[in-house]
Amino acid sequence: MYDWIREVKEILPLDSALRQRARQRLKEQTRPEGSLGLLESFIERFVAIQKKERPEMERKRILIFAADHGVSEEAVSRYPREVTKAMVLNFLSGGATINALARHVGAEVCVIDMGVDADFKGDPRLIHAKVRGGTRNMAREPAMTLEELDEALHAGWEVVRKAKEEGIQILALGEMGIGNTTAASAVVAALTGEEPESVTGRGTGLDEEGLRRKVEVIKRALDLHKGFLNDPLRVLQCLGGYEIAAMTGAILAAARFQIPTVIDGWIVSASALVASRINARILDYLFFAHQSEECGHRILLKMLEVEPILNLSMRLGEASGAALAMSILEAGVRIYNEVATFAEAGVANR
Amino acid sequence: MYDWIREVKEILPLDSALRQRARQRLKEQTRPEGSLGLLESFIERFVAIQKKERPEMERKRILIFAADHGVSEEAVSRYPREVTKAMVLNFLSGGATINALARHVGAEVCVIDMGVDADFKGDPRLIHAKVRGGTRNMAREPAMTLEELDEALHAGWEVVRKAKEEGIQILALGEMGIGNTTAASAVVAALTGEEPESVTGRGTGLDEEGLRRKVEVIKRALDLHKGFLNDPLRVLQCLGGYEIAAMTGAILAAARFQIPTVIDGWIVSASALVASRINARILDYLFFAHQSEECGHRILLKMLEVEPILNLSMRLGEASGAALAMSILEAGVRIYNEVATFAEAGVANR
Repeated sequence: MYDWIREVKEILPLDSALRQRARQRLKEQTRPEGSLGLLESFIERFVAIQKKERPEMERKRILIFAADHGVSEEAVSRYPREVTKAMVLNFLSGGATINALARHVGAEVCVIDMGVDADFKGDPRLIHAKVRGGTRNMAREPAMTLEELDEALHAGWEVVRKAKEEGIQILALGEMGIGNTTAASAVVAALTGEEPESVTGRGTGLDEEGLRRKVEVIKRALDLHKGFLNDPLRVLQCLGGYEIAAMTGAILAAARFQIPTVIDGWIVSASALVASRINARILDYLFFAHQSEECGHRILLKMLEVEPILNLSMRLGEASGAALAMSILEAGVRIYNEVATFAEAGVANR
Repeated sequence: MYDWIREVKEILPLDSALRQRARQRLKEQTRPEGSLGLLESFIERFVAIQKKERPEMERKRILIFAADHGVSEEAVSRYPREVTKAMVLNFLSGGATINALARHVGAEVCVIDMGVDADFKGDPRLIHAKVRGGTRNMAREPAMTLEELDEALHAGWEVVRKAKEEGIQILALGEMGIGNTTAASAVVAALTGEEPESVTGRGTGLDEEGLRRKVEVIKRALDLHKGFLNDPLRVLQCLGGYEIAAMTGAILAAARFQIPTVIDGWIVSASALVASRINARILDYLFFAHQSEECGHRILLKMLEVEPILNLSMRLGEASGAALAMSILEAGVRIYNEVATFAEAGVANR
């Protein structure tokens, strides 16, 4: 089991010479040094990951991992479980927010069924990797078996490996799954030791009563599994979701195959946290799209020591923040490739 | 003098019914209510300004107002004055950061010479509105005469009036002018009563010593003109710049002619502050692109009670933040126009 763990050990650190060279080029362009702020550090990393003299961001792919959650039977979401399926169909027909954003940034959208409680009957517009029609209720038993965890991790890994083969130059990861903010909060609480209250938010819009119930359910789950939470994979198994596990595999693969990858919001960040506990080097390959309105996200980004690109109080998921952030990164790539140097433009540098 | 002040009184408040209708459409789209955070309020305002069933953002224009500053003789910038001219030529030849960003978002760039200390010899790529080859040194005398102020305000107004005639659907305002963060800090200090220390930053990258000198110069100017600083136009006259005055006129015109307008950073925000003191309704028509690294900008945005779209610690000027923010607003427009409603997509809304 976990044969791919060997691959994970092959993840390389960023080439600091390449990064240095990128920084040098930015310095020589007709701007006061450092005047693009955070954008400069994003550009430097992007160039060092892609290892090209002139980086490219033509081929963009947005991956949306979808799954249902056993814990949704505890009434932890405002929306019924059927919405996972309905939104997947909405993604496929191009009517969702992420589709409008994908058209805006010129990206493909791929939807991966990791565990939606619905029969999509081999719909060719979907990547079929369903492990099971939803996890088990983590408040009563482990969300998944170890075999299922392995299957989900591997599916995410494979989707990214194929993207690399197909020449994709940047990925964005997003998700859909009623109940998955609950799973993400449980995973983050277990791995960081934060109190469930600090890392549990309103998801799609719970009221006070709903939020209290959600925290209660998470506490019950943490208590039930407490003997098994000393390892990131066990945490995923007991508390995660099929889409959260698949995104963990996808993030590890993105680092292994050196694809710059944009992380959407709260749930994808939980996957990034798990992946970072397996190999911290993955963080060099990730761009955190935004700080979501979910209350634990700020804490998690700070722990990971990463700066989000946007901070618009969004809380939609479905890779919406990641798609917006792609447009900012692409602007950075254009700047890097196109702006004249002081020498070329005949501008005095001091 | 100031005949255009009559026009300024014609600025309309936003149509609250239109805004309400936009909010309603956003609510009906397949997303949890409010889940796009700040982006939703930007979209609502954009729709209410443009008054179209389906808003449009095809025709984008970036205006860069350039001028030199007499105060630059006080060594308040890291760069020599000649850089204003050199950067204008860089904008015209397409080699600057803003040109790369304009290509990225599909916007035209128009550069307006309001007072560069250089002879552009009627270069047809430039809009010629030079008042004088740089203001006077505000630490010794008023930066400009009242006649010059009027000329600059009017020039900015006219550039926007023509943009309206030409069917421009969104504007971005930016600037170039060595010494203009000093002028902007003086204007903001005079109008808000903030201490010069709180609203004076490092501009293009001053060291400690340079920053102390800059604050000192601003204090001297405020002291010299203190009897004349009780009116926003007098503040502009004594402490402003030709580009800062022109942008004030441009902002008033943008509100008068109802063009959604993106405000770049510190210096353009100072113009917005002046304009808001002439007619506070202008704020409804503005989108503040980003919170700049200039230390006073956070304070000013808070005073104006506006939320910036981006916060990337940028401090470049030349409309760079505004161009990036245009891309976010355009994403919002696409979402508004293209996303399916719950009814259309057959998704359960609760």
